[in-house]
Amino acid sequence: MVMDVNRRTVLRLSRYRKALQRFSELGFVKVFSDNLGEAVGVTSAQVRKDFSLFGISGNKRGGYQIDSLLETLQRILGKGRVQKVIVAGAGNIGRALIHYPTFEKEGIQIAAAFDIDPAKMHRKERIPVLSLDEMPRFIEENGIEIGIIAVPEIAAQEVCDRMVRSGIRGILNFAPIRLRCGDENVVINPVNLQIELENVIYFVHALGKNQDTAPVNDKIKVNHL
Amino acid sequence: MVMDVNRRTVLRLSRYRKALQRFSELGFVKVFSDNLGEAVGVTSAQVRKDFSLFGISGNKRGGYQIDSLLETLQRILGKGRVQKVIVAGAGNIGRALIHYPTFEKEGIQIAAAFDIDPAKMHRKERIPVLSLDEMPRFIEENGIEIGIIAVPEIAAQEVCDRMVRSGIRGILNFAPIRLRCGDENVVINPVNLQIELENVIYFVHALGKNQDTAPVNDKIKVNHL
Repeated sequence: MVMDVNRRTVLRLSRYRKALQRFSELGFVKVFSDNLGEAVGVTSAQVRKDFSLFGISGNKRGGYQIDSLLETLQRILGKGRVQKVIVAGAGNIGRALIHYPTFEKEGIQIAAAFDIDPAKMHRKERIPVLSLDEMPRFIEENGIEIGIIAVPEIAAQEVCDRMVRSGIRGILNFAPIRLRCGDENVVINPVNLQIELENVIYFVHALGKNQDTAPVNDKIKVNHL
Repeated sequence: MVMDVNRRTVLRLSRYRKALQRFSELGFVKVFSDNLGEAVGVTSAQVRKDFSLFGISGNKRGGYQIDSLLETLQRILGKGRVQKVIVAGAGNIGRALIHYPTFEKEGIQIAAAFDIDPAKMHRKERIPVLSLDEMPRFIEENGIEIGIIAVPEIAAQEVCDRMVRSGIRGILNFAPIRLRCGDENVVINPVNLQIELENVIYFVHALGKNQDTAPVNDKIKVNHL
């Protein structure tokens, strides 16, 4: 299905939300679009444009009330309730996610991880690592909708298929392949670490070579990709 | 510095390159923009547009010669020589990068990792894990230009500063903060795993709620974010 959405807008909303939490912790009650823009690294016009898409308006003199703006962003971003997530693959990336320091604070709960390697299984841990064969039943019994794929490339498509058949509707994919998913109501977000690193290498070389291979499409500030 | 570049174009070039390698391994000699587009998940018009930015042209009947196209993309992407990279932080994410299966094949060599925890140091390994205090000298002596930051949030800015002072010009940053860097010739690519996961959660909720909170900016196919 094709939907009118903009991924980068949502990424910015997440960042505004985090900036607002910091402002709030510092005792601020109001912010202006300039403050938010500066904290997140965008223009104040961008902040106002993003907010207007969701019907959020400030006022030129008074700015935004931090409390109510935070509440609105929480609602838009599906916060305010605990979101259970499972991880397939308990290798290095899987373990990094199991131990990710700020997930709990943000209402994200890793409910369990799954692996095929018996040496990696830990049934008694707070976040258990179970057999991959137990994953479908776990997803169904716990009504899990979000899954993370952190298995080797060769196993990723099969894990994806099993997740989707069991009820997963959103996948964060760390395996370096493009997953095929027949169900167009399932969202897949690929994170390819190698491509992200190659991107840094490319820009370092392009800057060093006086930009002779740089395309001329749209302008971004290179300092932060 | 502001440069005319488009990050997503470069990401697509990396993907075209990988698709071409697969086609080549399968024995193909030529491809059409349709084939490449399908392999990467974009339209054939997008493929031709991306290539034309770099002066690459195919021909309508014959398509592209895979060999020469691969060579051109390798050159643009700075391949063909070994790129040495260091990793600050030997926790889960750092270790995932040290053991990333396809880096070597792609000409990326993790030269060393650095940590403050003596228990994580391994001087004798093929990829040594050294003390963070040794990092500046290692960068200078080995002429390293690319660094990965995989330390906790609280240490990330200081590590960034030390890297840049020692000669690093491109940083892949996994710490969940926006790094400040005075030198505008340094490229920083942030990868925030929490925001990537929140993004999946948002789109799953938005699809479930009949898109009542979806902004109406530009159109993307939701299936792959």
